[in-house]
Amino acid sequence: MRHSLVLTAGLLLGCNAWAAAPNNEPIQPIPPAKVANPAKVELGKQLFFDPRLSKSGIISCNSCHNLSRGGSDNLQTSIGHNWQEGPINSPTVLNSRMNIAQFWDGRAHDLKEQAGGPIANPKEMAFSHQQAVAVVSSIPQYREAIQKAYKTDKVTIDAITDAIAAFEKTLATPNSRFDRWLKGDQQALTQTEQDGYQLFKETGCVACHNGPAVGGNSFQKMGQVEAYKTENPAQGVAGLTGKDVDRFKFKVPTLRNVELTYPYFHDGAYWKLEEAVDVMARLQLGRQLSADETGKIVAFLKTLTGEQPSFALPLLPPSTADTPLPQPFH
Amino acid sequence: MRHSLVLTAGLLLGCNAWAAAPNNEPIQPIPPAKVANPAKVELGKQLFFDPRLSKSGIISCNSCHNLSRGGSDNLQTSIGHNWQEGPINSPTVLNSRMNIAQFWDGRAHDLKEQAGGPIANPKEMAFSHQQAVAVVSSIPQYREAIQKAYKTDKVTIDAITDAIAAFEKTLATPNSRFDRWLKGDQQALTQTEQDGYQLFKETGCVACHNGPAVGGNSFQKMGQVEAYKTENPAQGVAGLTGKDVDRFKFKVPTLRNVELTYPYFHDGAYWKLEEAVDVMARLQLGRQLSADETGKIVAFLKTLTGEQPSFALPLLPPSTADTPLPQPFH
Repeated sequence: MRHSLVLTAGLLLGCNAWAAAPNNEPIQPIPPAKVANPAKVELGKQLFFDPRLSKSGIISCNSCHNLSRGGSDNLQTSIGHNWQEGPINSPTVLNSRMNIAQFWDGRAHDLKEQAGGPIANPKEMAFSHQQAVAVVSSIPQYREAIQKAYKTDKVTIDAITDAIAAFEKTLATPNSRFDRWLKGDQQALTQTEQDGYQLFKETGCVACHNGPAVGGNSFQKMGQVEAYKTENPAQGVAGLTGKDVDRFKFKVPTLRNVELTYPYFHDGAYWKLEEAVDVMARLQLGRQLSADETGKIVAFLKTLTGEQPSFALPLLPPSTADTPLPQPFH
Repeated sequence: MRHSLVLTAGLLLGCNAWAAAPNNEPIQPIPPAKVANPAKVELGKQLFFDPRLSKSGIISCNSCHNLSRGGSDNLQTSIGHNWQEGPINSPTVLNSRMNIAQFWDGRAHDLKEQAGGPIANPKEMAFSHQQAVAVVSSIPQYREAIQKAYKTDKVTIDAITDAIAAFEKTLATPNSRFDRWLKGDQQALTQTEQDGYQLFKETGCVACHNGPAVGGNSFQKMGQVEAYKTENPAQGVAGLTGKDVDRFKFKVPTLRNVELTYPYFHDGAYWKLEEAVDVMARLQLGRQLSADETGKIVAFLKTLTGEQPSFALPLLPPSTADTPLPQPFH
């Protein structure tokens, strides 16, 4: 019975549509975000946009993971407290819940652990967890929101980062043209874009860039076939393990919304998708693509831009007499 | 006939409500924003949030006029390109269309003229009008939006700043509790807040802080009765005219949303409303208020917080191969 229903569906959709069914492809559609706890998400959204979690009072999560710009800052490396040059390209927060781990070297187990990093990093927000708690504690609207979401009077960095992570988990980008095509809408992609997807698979890109996030689910050495040349000192996973075998091993970035998240690679050295595709093909796969092939793959990659999270700009509750003052110039 | 109708209305609302009718008061309700040209407003909203109008690619209009925070950055003075310390406190953009002129010294005639200032100021966004035009011209979605709003293929700084101003003109904050009270809702204010308003008038604050914006409509000397001491070198209008009589003459700031726009005065030296009220009463009016009086005036001032502009976080179109690259560290 089930079998015949499936066959009927296949016939109705036509042969090509059937071939494109998600279960036959190494890339699956991005599922829409689920909001498990709206109170946590609303609190986390405010905190994500609140620059009072930084020493200067001007840097928020959204500064480097700008949700107006694909969840990134579109800089080679970010600008931190006192205009310090960041060590590495800021990865997009979009769909980041699907990453195997967080940061390029995977040093944070999940989004909650990640959220605590930049707050306390002297090169980024240059604050401390204790100071962040002091800021949030001083604002009655935040205390009420924490009470509502966590059923406690006590403000902790745990609650702050958990709420930020709860918000970030909602930042999915479903219904890209590619996903609509995966689901059977043959009109969603042009022939060039479909050719690009075939090339993406045949060239071997899909070996690492697969799954719903088109990446984010493994660590790979940058420069498998040919060494990657960069002035950026980041060592990847080796920076954590100290093992030579982990040198230049980085989390494979998601390619979802890659059209928006330039510049590319951990050092942000390449601004154009064509360049990034060419470098990857040569260094990771030993393949020299023609300009035509690169163009087709880029055309495919641009179909991965999904619906961006849409919400009202959050309004932040005002500071009180108890709120620690920002210290931008100290 | 008309007279008897008015009398009837007065009887129905009660004597107090009638006394509080707007035409009897030196402060009038903030009118809601009118959107004359939605295409201009939408374009201007994107540009207001676009950090590509700065040399670094990280500073947008919203950085210092943060619409999550009462249209201000809540810093003493703003942080500009390369973490330069700004010269003066960033005034709120909320209701700024009602200002007699823009900037503390009024050197910009209107919002459009103002918008061009920070873009080209080497201490703020450190860009140039030419570069801003180059960025906007390189992005097809912006070219289309300019075509739609201005019926021209030519991107000019004139169109860019006009669109930003068109958006800013929509940033009204109507329906504050005080405005509801002005319109006859006696329940909108507590007795303390009403007492505060009476004190605000009797003390003389209302001599300068009047009209719908509760300020913004005149220039006055900071320190009329007693000199204002500050390390901030700003000279006010004298910086433009060179006249000694204009020394320390600044535009009277709006008190709308003043609860959100700390710290106060052109040098941002005071973080608490109580302090700001005390200083103003002494230096401008030669009045030493009691703590009780100050508290009542502050209670009144907090009723001036209106409905904040609410809109979806704008999504910015991606750069292209023609877009000049940001130069944060050059």
